[in-house]
Amino acid sequence: MKDFHFELLARDGEARTGIIHTPRGPIHTPAFMPVGTAATVKAMLPQSVRETGADILLGNTYHLMLRPGAERIARLGGLHKFMDWPRPILTDSGGFQVMSLSALRKISEEGVKFQSHIDGHEEFLSPERAMQIQRQLGSDIQMVFDECPALPATHAAIEKSMALSMRWAKRSKAAFGEQEQHSCFGIVQGGVYPHLRRRSAEELTAIGFDGYAIGGLAVGEGQAAMFEVLEATIPHLSPNHPRYLMGVGKPDDIVGAALRGIDMFDCVLPTRSGRNGQAFTWKGPLNLRNARHAEDEAPLDATCSCPACRSYSRAYLHHVVKSGEIIASMLLTWHNLTFFQDVMRAFRAAMAGKNAASFARNFLADYRAGESEDSG
Amino acid sequence: MKDFHFELLARDGEARTGIIHTPRGPIHTPAFMPVGTAATVKAMLPQSVRETGADILLGNTYHLMLRPGAERIARLGGLHKFMDWPRPILTDSGGFQVMSLSALRKISEEGVKFQSHIDGHEEFLSPERAMQIQRQLGSDIQMVFDECPALPATHAAIEKSMALSMRWAKRSKAAFGEQEQHSCFGIVQGGVYPHLRRRSAEELTAIGFDGYAIGGLAVGEGQAAMFEVLEATIPHLSPNHPRYLMGVGKPDDIVGAALRGIDMFDCVLPTRSGRNGQAFTWKGPLNLRNARHAEDEAPLDATCSCPACRSYSRAYLHHVVKSGEIIASMLLTWHNLTFFQDVMRAFRAAMAGKNAASFARNFLADYRAGESEDSG
Repeated sequence: MKDFHFELLARDGEARTGIIHTPRGPIHTPAFMPVGTAATVKAMLPQSVRETGADILLGNTYHLMLRPGAERIARLGGLHKFMDWPRPILTDSGGFQVMSLSALRKISEEGVKFQSHIDGHEEFLSPERAMQIQRQLGSDIQMVFDECPALPATHAAIEKSMALSMRWAKRSKAAFGEQEQHSCFGIVQGGVYPHLRRRSAEELTAIGFDGYAIGGLAVGEGQAAMFEVLEATIPHLSPNHPRYLMGVGKPDDIVGAALRGIDMFDCVLPTRSGRNGQAFTWKGPLNLRNARHAEDEAPLDATCSCPACRSYSRAYLHHVVKSGEIIASMLLTWHNLTFFQDVMRAFRAAMAGKNAASFARNFLADYRAGESEDSG
Repeated sequence: MKDFHFELLARDGEARTGIIHTPRGPIHTPAFMPVGTAATVKAMLPQSVRETGADILLGNTYHLMLRPGAERIARLGGLHKFMDWPRPILTDSGGFQVMSLSALRKISEEGVKFQSHIDGHEEFLSPERAMQIQRQLGSDIQMVFDECPALPATHAAIEKSMALSMRWAKRSKAAFGEQEQHSCFGIVQGGVYPHLRRRSAEELTAIGFDGYAIGGLAVGEGQAAMFEVLEATIPHLSPNHPRYLMGVGKPDDIVGAALRGIDMFDCVLPTRSGRNGQAFTWKGPLNLRNARHAEDEAPLDATCSCPACRSYSRAYLHHVVKSGEIIASMLLTWHNLTFFQDVMRAFRAAMAGKNAASFARNFLADYRAGESEDSG
């Protein structure tokens, strides 16, 4: 038996809670993975990320292959040692970033030629190369290389792209080979078309993966359409493997998707928003730039245990955001990552009491009631 | 007796070690004060600054009066509470920043009219206003308002400016009044002219202050000229009060000045350099941008206890500096502040053994031998 397996602890409707066991430690699900793009979760030390409750980070193959390079990280002992994060790391395959960041892409059956967004030099990614890089990084959960079609796209274009991604998934799995310490996840594609999603899920299941991701969502289709895709896809995924919704999302997206049976999430939202002066709270997001915080002695969130909430007033956070001070990014990122982990902890606790649906209802009511108050 | 006094523990030649007792805690001298310009030591949490060994921070009156405003900080409970630093804070008077940062200055006997560098609105600083602001901030050590003449300047201009600063020192002291919990320092001016420095020191002594600063140095005159001014000035300062060399400096400046009898220092160098990829070590400064660090598995400094040295290779620091990641500023600032405090600790320990001169000799030999190796 592989050192990697999913233990289901409880179900409540479609929602699940469990533990993904890995040689580098357990991942409690539903889990939120902070994004550590370039071997750092921006504005955080790894020990602080761990203190928020994160069991696993996400690293970006595209960024790391360009700088500092996968071979270099391998020579330096792997990504965990390099960035001082001994716990599990999931790496994406670079497919999404190639489409969103690089210039002059040329897609063929073999793979994708592209130019680095950093210095313009020509690079190549294929299923084989993407899996090789992830192995060099020492990634615990390695994602298949997929094609992410630009939207809007016709049904025919989505179908063609999905079919290519399935052929690439097969090659990715073959390139992954056998790794006792690591695992490999497939990625369901198919846009907003239920029958394409189903076909993709079935083809991946036939190949056989350690977990199944749902890709190509949270790209502008809206929450209702996203939830419809989840409801059309999840019944065709193995109940015995973790399910990962890539790039999602806002707190209400996450709670709604977890209720529908998703186990893993990642998103730049808590970190990127933190660097832009936005804080997430149980009563909705706050914009600390807003002048109404300028003399507010209250903490961001009196119930939160992060340093921003324990030691500072909203007035201070307003001041450092307005002044462009690095401590603003540090404190708001820390707070936002703590909030996202607090939401996951609360969801898991509700699951244990079979209260997932009522937790979600109350969460959304509070969150959306406050959401409009500070859209400045 | 005031709650503020200087206890001399040992002398070795002109060098001294002691404790400045304050109601907010002791300051071990010679002391280095990290600069917390806008109510934050850039890229650091205050708890981390304390962990480096800092007993006291410096805050900038000019920046804080413009944003968020001294009245606002007073309403929010003072600077210590606002920025979560319960230990001593020294504030400058704004005189230096008015000259170096603001536009359209107009100096009169009364004070200085100037335009904010942030939004151009007109502001006014005088001895009375500068002391009022520092009292509103709740500063533990308040500096007199002085004029800092632009260099180069003639002897006549320096003399005239020094005389104005002495009249302002008298008004500053009167405006400071009696504050049991706080102290007020005078500032010796007089350029590189020994007789002007002497006259300034004597005039300040006649007014009577809790400590004496030496201003107007480290502005391009060079280390030899600076040390000559110290040697010409210090004999005319009370041995029973702390002596503070403002805005200094590089590690070798600090060691040389401490050897000549200076007790307190402040400088942006460790924090600003940290944000620019430079690290200070016992073997001289290192530039982490330099490609020779790209695959170096060694820590910055194997003897250092900071997180950058405990958990990361030079290769990682090179990567995050090159990538412009915030963690590069966080780690290198933390390291540099630790190094500056380590130098102060080592100097104080050498003083206890009456070895200040040989410590300084060895320190400078090691530091300068390595200094050229990484000037890239």
